[in-house]
Amino acid sequence: MYYRIIIKAHILILQSCCFLLNPHALNISSQTQITVYGSKYTMPNNSPKLIDLMDDTVPGIGTYEDFNTIDWVREKSKDRDRHREITNKSKHSTVALLFSISDAFSGWLLMLLIGLMSGALAGGIDIAAHWMTDLKEGVCLNGFWFNHEHCCWASNETTFQERDKCPQWKSWAELMDGVSEGRVNVLNHFMYVSWALLFAFLAVILVRAFAPYACGSGIPEIKTILSGFIIRGYLGKWTLIIKTITLVLAVSSGLSLGKEGPLVHVACCCANILCHFFTKYRRNEAKKREVLSAASAVGVSVAFGAPIGGVLFSLEEVSYYFPLKTLWRSFFAALVAAFTLRSINPFGNSRLVLFYVEFHTPWHLLELIPFVLLGIFGGLWGAFFIHANIAWCRLRKNTRLGHYPVIEVLVVTLLTALLAFPIEYTRMSSSELISELFNDCGLLDSSKLCDYTGNSGSTSGSVNATAANGLGARLAGPKLYTAMWQLALALVFKMFITVATFGMKVPSGLFIPSMALAVHNHERDIFRGWCSPGADCITPGLYAMVGAAACLGGVTRMTVSLVVIMFELTGGLEYIVPLMAAAMTSKWVADALSRESIYEAHIRLNGYPFLEAKEEFRHKTLATDVMRPRRSDPPLSVLTQSGMTVEEVERLIADTTYSGFPVVISQLSQRLVGFVLRRDLFISLENARRHQDGVVSVSAVLFTECESPASPGAPPAVKLRSILDLSPFTVTVHTPMEIVVDIFRKLGLRQCLVIQNGRLLGIITKKDILKHMAQMANRDPESILFN
Amino acid sequence: MYYRIIIKAHILILQSCCFLLNPHALNISSQTQITVYGSKYTMPNNSPKLIDLMDDTVPGIGTYEDFNTIDWVREKSKDRDRHREITNKSKHSTVALLFSISDAFSGWLLMLLIGLMSGALAGGIDIAAHWMTDLKEGVCLNGFWFNHEHCCWASNETTFQERDKCPQWKSWAELMDGVSEGRVNVLNHFMYVSWALLFAFLAVILVRAFAPYACGSGIPEIKTILSGFIIRGYLGKWTLIIKTITLVLAVSSGLSLGKEGPLVHVACCCANILCHFFTKYRRNEAKKREVLSAASAVGVSVAFGAPIGGVLFSLEEVSYYFPLKTLWRSFFAALVAAFTLRSINPFGNSRLVLFYVEFHTPWHLLELIPFVLLGIFGGLWGAFFIHANIAWCRLRKNTRLGHYPVIEVLVVTLLTALLAFPIEYTRMSSSELISELFNDCGLLDSSKLCDYTGNSGSTSGSVNATAANGLGARLAGPKLYTAMWQLALALVFKMFITVATFGMKVPSGLFIPSMALAVHNHERDIFRGWCSPGADCITPGLYAMVGAAACLGGVTRMTVSLVVIMFELTGGLEYIVPLMAAAMTSKWVADALSRESIYEAHIRLNGYPFLEAKEEFRHKTLATDVMRPRRSDPPLSVLTQSGMTVEEVERLIADTTYSGFPVVISQLSQRLVGFVLRRDLFISLENARRHQDGVVSVSAVLFTECESPASPGAPPAVKLRSILDLSPFTVTVHTPMEIVVDIFRKLGLRQCLVIQNGRLLGIITKKDILKHMAQMANRDPESILFN
Repeated sequence: MYYRIIIKAHILILQSCCFLLNPHALNISSQTQITVYGSKYTMPNNSPKLIDLMDDTVPGIGTYEDFNTIDWVREKSKDRDRHREITNKSKHSTVALLFSISDAFSGWLLMLLIGLMSGALAGGIDIAAHWMTDLKEGVCLNGFWFNHEHCCWASNETTFQERDKCPQWKSWAELMDGVSEGRVNVLNHFMYVSWALLFAFLAVILVRAFAPYACGSGIPEIKTILSGFIIRGYLGKWTLIIKTITLVLAVSSGLSLGKEGPLVHVACCCANILCHFFTKYRRNEAKKREVLSAASAVGVSVAFGAPIGGVLFSLEEVSYYFPLKTLWRSFFAALVAAFTLRSINPFGNSRLVLFYVEFHTPWHLLELIPFVLLGIFGGLWGAFFIHANIAWCRLRKNTRLGHYPVIEVLVVTLLTALLAFPIEYTRMSSSELISELFNDCGLLDSSKLCDYTGNSGSTSGSVNATAANGLGARLAGPKLYTAMWQLALALVFKMFITVATFGMKVPSGLFIPSMALAVHNHERDIFRGWCSPGADCITPGLYAMVGAAACLGGVTRMTVSLVVIMFELTGGLEYIVPLMAAAMTSKWVADALSRESIYEAHIRLNGYPFLEAKEEFRHKTLATDVMRPRRSDPPLSVLTQSGMTVEEVERLIADTTYSGFPVVISQLSQRLVGFVLRRDLFISLENARRHQDGVVSVSAVLFTECESPASPGAPPAVKLRSILDLSPFTVTVHTPMEIVVDIFRKLGLRQCLVIQNGRLLGIITKKDILKHMAQMANRDPESILFN
Repeated sequence: MYYRIIIKAHILILQSCCFLLNPHALNISSQTQITVYGSKYTMPNNSPKLIDLMDDTVPGIGTYEDFNTIDWVREKSKDRDRHREITNKSKHSTVALLFSISDAFSGWLLMLLIGLMSGALAGGIDIAAHWMTDLKEGVCLNGFWFNHEHCCWASNETTFQERDKCPQWKSWAELMDGVSEGRVNVLNHFMYVSWALLFAFLAVILVRAFAPYACGSGIPEIKTILSGFIIRGYLGKWTLIIKTITLVLAVSSGLSLGKEGPLVHVACCCANILCHFFTKYRRNEAKKREVLSAASAVGVSVAFGAPIGGVLFSLEEVSYYFPLKTLWRSFFAALVAAFTLRSINPFGNSRLVLFYVEFHTPWHLLELIPFVLLGIFGGLWGAFFIHANIAWCRLRKNTRLGHYPVIEVLVVTLLTALLAFPIEYTRMSSSELISELFNDCGLLDSSKLCDYTGNSGSTSGSVNATAANGLGARLAGPKLYTAMWQLALALVFKMFITVATFGMKVPSGLFIPSMALAVHNHERDIFRGWCSPGADCITPGLYAMVGAAACLGGVTRMTVSLVVIMFELTGGLEYIVPLMAAAMTSKWVADALSRESIYEAHIRLNGYPFLEAKEEFRHKTLATDVMRPRRSDPPLSVLTQSGMTVEEVERLIADTTYSGFPVVISQLSQRLVGFVLRRDLFISLENARRHQDGVVSVSAVLFTECESPASPGAPPAVKLRSILDLSPFTVTVHTPMEIVVDIFRKLGLRQCLVIQNGRLLGIITKKDILKHMAQMANRDPESILFN
């Protein structure tokens, strides 16, 4: 435990370093107060004027409201301006040069901190979950803070074989005097269920009371946030604290859930909180999202001990905008996190995860057939799981079931605990189960799965002789058959309970349950006939691994990242081929049944405005079919660059709900000048009314550059060219929607104006596109929420 | 050798399979001959009309000329149309459904073929180069086709220690009778130099005679091609054949060059040739580039036995447009290639590369200091190498030196061979050298580098006792000091000769020389003091590895891919941190000295129109500063949508060299209608003159939709709306160039029109942007070649 404290102290020290760097940052950027957004740029060679878009004179301009989409182009251009300013300044003074260097390295410092913090948290979660899982079964007499394994390590009396039964570790029934032999099991079962219910209750209550965003996997929301959506508080400090605590509780309660999605969420929370200490990232939503992309790599890195896999996961699965710079930084952060976790050593084996394995046996080309079969099974399971889970979530959403989340969690926990206890493989935690199944049998292994009797009547004394022949040649012992039955039961049980668990109001991940599911399959293949006696030709662990990859592939539709994660778990290049065969088959089978991954299905279920980058838009509609106003609608609400009064503009804002208005030369010509955001317009007008002398309702609002000579005696005009975006994106009415969608995705637009022969005709927003896509796919376009 | 034949036979069989599939593909696509490019689309739900942009009525429309830039948007839209057509058809007939499925899988088949072919070729190159390198020193009596190692394997008489000296292998001097003892060495040296000169001469003559594109590394050109440029013949079959042969010759001649860049080129040639068998890829330049991206991953995969590293290399270093689908396919192809190479087993050790190593010793945190120092050295070396090499190449280009490439190659080869022979470490091939340096010393290793004498007076008989203490505790023997001197000499020698070699008119790569360079450094660190006696704490091989990574990083500025390649070579996650530290330092140091990698420097040297995606455009210019016409120029050449005659249009084409013309409503209003490409316009007019009745010089050219009632007796109008792009990309004059550059990069545009308040003002082409960027960087804008 004290490792965590040390790590946290380190983080505190590093955080104070940031503070030392930071006030300086604030000083520098507060020196420039010139607002020039959208105004005339000058040639770089003769530009002494410094530009900073972040510090607008009117506070609030350039920020976003909750549940809105950011404008990537604007954010990136803000960052470039900021960078330009710093570079220019650094040529003039040494202090500015030093600041410029510290600014360049602040990204790396931030990555280091995220890695350290996430690694430390993940280590803490692992240790705590391990201890609490064991607490359900018993307690250590040497000290209640020891888990089962540590307890038995501390006692030196145990022999190698009997590690599981050490005198210091007492089950709850053993602690009570006078419990009859027959009731021990019942009592243990009762305690197991009670602890599980307590943990689950605490988890759900904490989530409901303090941080409603802490529930669920978090990956669908993080995907949406990374695509440019704003959900305030989703990555806040309360979410972080509650998610960390409840994740431990939920995992310990024995629910069929993993901690990978939540770990990604936790890492992203860390990143978001740490971003606050760096001006560069705090004030720029696009830069912040680069950091969050790296953080999701960190999350996977600590969940599986797979830094490269984590980076590829971030690249393939969650990220929206992933420049190469982010790739390199993500890799760095993922490595730091992995090594922090290793130095905490939560599993006491200097491995990053419980189920790290190293195989050395080769596989046969013929074995590809069962691997592909596993892939088909995984694909079917994936499609079934997504379908069943979404149906269940929809039921919960639409019926009265959703009103009682606490009761739901308790019922599922009760069921899980009641049913799981009798079978050894469901009683242990998912990671332990995976660890047991992935491992090859050692000769002295006490696990039932390794109960092979020696062949040709070799006695137990001649174990060493048999060892040379390998395990494959030995016959399966009776315990193995029991284990097989239990595994099959566990498989069926896990399948149903996982469907009900994912999406409940507790933090839950999918990876580990999916893996646990898959590994149940593997033992069946042991008895296939092509193994010549004496040759150790089939590795059950490999089948477990491949099965896990197949099931995960079916559920998440990951490809490269999945294979690389599995490769990093096994460490052998030769196993990539089986893993790849299974992952590929699984994805194909699942895709044939339904196109969406579980995350995308949940994004759609929740109506998040997420523009999927993987799926190509295949319809033949044109911009004119999607743009508003439709043919039957009233004409587009536009502003003219001159000739409107403050009152008219304010009425337009009040009457409409659009988030922005195009500005044209005149209502007649409809020739486009620029685009102004509703929020900016509203703030500027209010500001003018409050702070500018003589502004009344009949004051003119001017978006023009040159001031037209006002009639004498007229009130002063409100000049708003500075908030006007003079380079709005435009497409023509004939542009195919596939190209429009491409532009929106690649440039990260919020809206785009539609013109024909130089005349403004309409507007297309991201929401219009999402609605149109929903309509094309025969879904309800109104299911897309928010702006 | 017979492995190769089998592999090639396999490829032939698979190729014939493609032919079986293919005629069908041709039939289907030739059924639809409706040209609708740019014409009115219809809603998808009521569209029975089938659209195929590939088969235009007028041949040549939609294709590109040599040294032109492709239009990514158009290519991708063509592919989507094609896919839509196939999907629509597949609903109606079973044959079409089958074709649709085979079409969907053709990408995978293509990847498989590329992997097989490239893997086989790489294996062949390895075997041939190995044999020919040994041929310089001697010949095998059992058969001239054996290389040194095979020759000595075949003879069973050799003991473990004396493998290098087996009776069957004779040096050239030994073959001749009556050579006196003193002259053996001179004679061997003479033969060595002669063979080297012969190989180099053959290589340069072959390149000059048959395939001038086969020279050099190829990576700069491939980067340019992937960014959308067309260089016909660069990836053709002659280039493939000649590059394969001359690569073997050049490597065998002992020149300081590697085969990684050329292997990437070879893989891309394979991909390009195989693309011809698949309509989907043959006819679409964008799809072809996806395949080429995957092929460059294959090239690195076979060069280093690092499939994941290869994919990341392709993603990070060479690719321009890399959708996720390509990621997954690249990975597949890279794996297939790696396993093909392994089954050929060119090094006889079932490893993919000669210098695969597996370390198991941990490293100390303090060792990070020398690692970072190695990184700094690597960065300095990288910056120096790029500078010196570019200066040398410029000298060659601008002076009379460039007129005698054959003599240049022969002189460099002569120098290399003369100087390299005396030192053992330069005489052996680069990969052998790396292999020797990367390896830890075994106890029975005969290499000089492993000449440690036992400590505390242990005799040679007590080697086993010393073994327990590890090698670190033993004192360095006298031979080791000799080795150190030789290594230092070799380092200096390699440094200078590599500068002169890269860029010569023979196939040459950089990776291996850079690695070889670096590994020379490693031994120095052995004598540092913090190694407690008896502990095996410093791994010289690790230093070699880290040094190699640092030098490569400095020269190529690769980051993640470099670390992952090295990780795949060592197979240990714990060595990622040293590698990363070195690669990071190296990149920072090198970037501080000059921003460009060797590939970018060569791209600039050759003036290729490559829009770098990594470097952000940081200047504050606006679209209006870059667009043509400039203020002093004559107005933009535009077409009007009606009112022009064939003769007028033809004169405009003849008078200007622009690759396209905007079409406006009228000269007065300058309101934009669309954009028409010069090539399309020219072909269409010629076609109309030839095939359309009554078209004369005064015939009207109409781009309008509705035909204006022509005056009676007037000649029939030429209607060209079908070749008009009705959705040209537009920006406003106020758009900052950073956004314009971003749009060009992300969407892959060729040109973009500039409008102000609805009026067309100018045009920006990719070349304008490149020229502007050159100008901003104070370089000669005229250095950008081609269109």
